[in-house]
Amino acid sequence: MNPNQTATITLAQALLRIDSVTPEDKGCQTIISDFLAKLDFHNEPMPFGQVTNLWSRRGQTAPMVVFAGHTDVVPTGPVDKWQHPPFSAQIDGDMLCARGAADMKSAIACFMVATERFIYDYPDHPGSIGFLITSDEEGPAVDGTVKVVETLEARQEKIDFCLVGEPSSDKKLGDSIKNGRRGSLNATLTIKGVQGHIAYPQLADNPVHKALPALTALTAIEWDQGNDYFPPTSLQISNIHAGTGATNVIPGDLQIMFNFRFSTEHTPETLKQGVIDCLAAFDLDYDLSWNLSGLPFVTPAEGELIQATCNAVEQCMGYRPTLSTGGGTSDGRFIAPTGAQVIEFGPLNDTIHKVNERVSITDLNQLTDIYYHILVNLLIKAA
Amino acid sequence: MNPNQTATITLAQALLRIDSVTPEDKGCQTIISDFLAKLDFHNEPMPFGQVTNLWSRRGQTAPMVVFAGHTDVVPTGPVDKWQHPPFSAQIDGDMLCARGAADMKSAIACFMVATERFIYDYPDHPGSIGFLITSDEEGPAVDGTVKVVETLEARQEKIDFCLVGEPSSDKKLGDSIKNGRRGSLNATLTIKGVQGHIAYPQLADNPVHKALPALTALTAIEWDQGNDYFPPTSLQISNIHAGTGATNVIPGDLQIMFNFRFSTEHTPETLKQGVIDCLAAFDLDYDLSWNLSGLPFVTPAEGELIQATCNAVEQCMGYRPTLSTGGGTSDGRFIAPTGAQVIEFGPLNDTIHKVNERVSITDLNQLTDIYYHILVNLLIKAA
Repeated sequence: MNPNQTATITLAQALLRIDSVTPEDKGCQTIISDFLAKLDFHNEPMPFGQVTNLWSRRGQTAPMVVFAGHTDVVPTGPVDKWQHPPFSAQIDGDMLCARGAADMKSAIACFMVATERFIYDYPDHPGSIGFLITSDEEGPAVDGTVKVVETLEARQEKIDFCLVGEPSSDKKLGDSIKNGRRGSLNATLTIKGVQGHIAYPQLADNPVHKALPALTALTAIEWDQGNDYFPPTSLQISNIHAGTGATNVIPGDLQIMFNFRFSTEHTPETLKQGVIDCLAAFDLDYDLSWNLSGLPFVTPAEGELIQATCNAVEQCMGYRPTLSTGGGTSDGRFIAPTGAQVIEFGPLNDTIHKVNERVSITDLNQLTDIYYHILVNLLIKAA
Repeated sequence: MNPNQTATITLAQALLRIDSVTPEDKGCQTIISDFLAKLDFHNEPMPFGQVTNLWSRRGQTAPMVVFAGHTDVVPTGPVDKWQHPPFSAQIDGDMLCARGAADMKSAIACFMVATERFIYDYPDHPGSIGFLITSDEEGPAVDGTVKVVETLEARQEKIDFCLVGEPSSDKKLGDSIKNGRRGSLNATLTIKGVQGHIAYPQLADNPVHKALPALTALTAIEWDQGNDYFPPTSLQISNIHAGTGATNVIPGDLQIMFNFRFSTEHTPETLKQGVIDCLAAFDLDYDLSWNLSGLPFVTPAEGELIQATCNAVEQCMGYRPTLSTGGGTSDGRFIAPTGAQVIEFGPLNDTIHKVNERVSITDLNQLTDIYYHILVNLLIKAA
């Protein structure tokens, strides 16, 4: 028997052998809720639309520590490029190989075993422990965490500390905590012109030509210089399209999609106004629509959650994590507005969304220890 | 019997009832060559690839007057939007209605009847008459007129005057002669960047952002101011594409297609160098490829062909045409480089390539007269 084949690994494999591509859960949450029921958790399935969600809580008092995560995974991509079948959860040396191994079923297994140990050691712990699990983090994220949080807020069930098990580690386990996220704001811009034959430009009005100086100005703006927690706000054009492929037609309009990743130096309103003011300097006929993907949030370094986590990492690993607000969005953006302290903290992220996603089983066993110590630091030592 | 139902109209209907969409001929050229054989023409079918071409000549001496045209038509578009089935060639009042009625099977019928009358009146005319007919003018035009012209040049068979029967008339029959065409040069430009996640712009290199100032500069250039024969050279972007639709990916490259319509103030080489010089002012990694669609050409107003045509229009219609080099390309671009005087002269162009294409049968009968007089003016009066 592999000495590393712990309860964490066995549970992780059980979850990873289920092909729960977004928005499918396919029974993952049943494994979790059955496990938690034996630990005297109160399980509440909260399905919305096609999405399976689980809210599970043990204890009635504050503070409430919540482990948050998702059972859905992104598609495998070409299966024949995987060294091991992506839902076989094979162990290859020290690596557990599967879609979702790093992002993020394994962290859920670590949550579960850390909680089991904590309850074994402190059966009458003060405060509460919650599990907030969704099957739609990788998809539209409309019927997942956001709906569960709305339900909890409606009945004034308050989360104090939330640890999202997203893979935050960079080079070695625990070297980085995400203590916030930039906001994300998407725009779709259509510049209108007049279509025509390319041989008669005087009868047409080329929207590409009209748009170029305006887009040049828009992409040259320095929006801010960031602040202590955030890198500078960034505008990036993700898509630009005009023309049908014909070489002899001046297109009738130009479609542009762009995205802001923005710091707390801006609000969606100040960014929208900045774009409108920039475009107003040019003679353009345009449509502009917006989609707010998430507001920026930051959990202060001096708060209890970050201190408890940094101390737990130091206890287990001998070094302290650095804090970061870089990278993509996660469901933390839905929990932070409730006033909870929110961090993302989990395994290495180097293989996420890729072929041959994998995670170190040594790391997973250490991560279980760290999560255990975070519970101790927050609920026992701080009490 | 409609007094306008002349031999021209009957021949035009015979050609128009054949659904010869590019590159199909479907027997049109057999109708033409059978007709010309009876007038002692020497027929040479010149098929290349999928394209049917006819070279037909009467006489062995100079000057050689050539009628040039095409039997292929563009697709009908939605047939149910046509008032009359597009290959029924129905006459509705004064209008002959069919795909190809204006562009340009009817003009071929006019060529044929004008030639028949001319030979009846002048059986021993000096010089030669040629017919250069292709079934691929509306398509890639690779195996059509250009190949026939190469064949003639290889055996030093020289065209002196070439009348292309394209619909050149604007408001009334004969009001405009196209005596040249701008050149057309296509470019495909790829600006290379580095793809990446939109949340990590520092790890990517957005090719759209890099390209915008360069494209702004490129589209702001005044290439020339035109000259006596040509409007100013025009650069138009026809297509611009980057991104796959995902809102969170910085695209890896940007594809741009643009087209020059250029005057005799420029050569393809000077335009290419202008683009390269413009792009060199920016820090870009790019690929650029070119496709020359046609060189500009102009047939001087004082030449015999234009004088003969203007006089013929005045004899038949009482007014003289204006000269123009505007509009799209035609097969004249392949004939002009041989040194021939080339014009396009035919019926009204208001319905070409549209649903319910049509042409006036009164105009077609007058056009037959004009073509007859052009032959008289060039081969009898000038001789």
